[in-house]
Amino acid sequence: MKLTATLSLVTLALLYSSASAEICPGFLHIIENVFMGTLSSYETAVEPFSPDQDMRDAGTQLKKLVDTLPQKARDSVIKFTEKIVKSSLCN
Amino acid sequence: MKLTATLSLVTLALLYSSASAEICPGFLHIIENVFMGTLSSYETAVEPFSPDQDMRDAGTQLKKLVDTLPQKARDSVIKFTEKIVKSSLCN
Repeated sequence: MKLTATLSLVTLALLYSSASAEICPGFLHIIENVFMGTLSSYETAVEPFSPDQDMRDAGTQLKKLVDTLPQKARDSVIKFTEKIVKSSLCN
Repeated sequence: MKLTATLSLVTLALLYSSASAEICPGFLHIIENVFMGTLSSYETAVEPFSPDQDMRDAGTQLKKLVDTLPQKARDSVIKFTEKIVKSSLCN
């Protein structure tokens, strides 16, 4: 529940900050699920983009690897993503 | 040299395919360097977005972790990124 609330806030923050940014919201949603979500929520996030089996397998490997990163590092990657999305270079 | 050529081709493919896509080229350049570049080329790619020290440290941890993924998985992640960039959901 706490994770869901956090993810929703991150989604809102990213979507809001990317309102005028040139980064597709569906792509940001995948990135936030790689770093903050569960394997299941990540798999749901990629579904609209119809990955083939190799892409699915690679995504699962990546997600499991990222889950071994310390929480602090994952938070910092998301903060950096937010900074990029808001930067003048992406707007 | 081979790596540089491959990276240039991937960059061109991503930039070309994202000409009308809502994904910032500088952000794509970072992603392709996480999966295909060296630690040094990755560090160069993030520089325009002025990461703070925590973001730098987290990025280095992430890059070193991704370097342990099999080449096939890294190729599939980039192919999936290209597919997302070209998808109607991001255009």
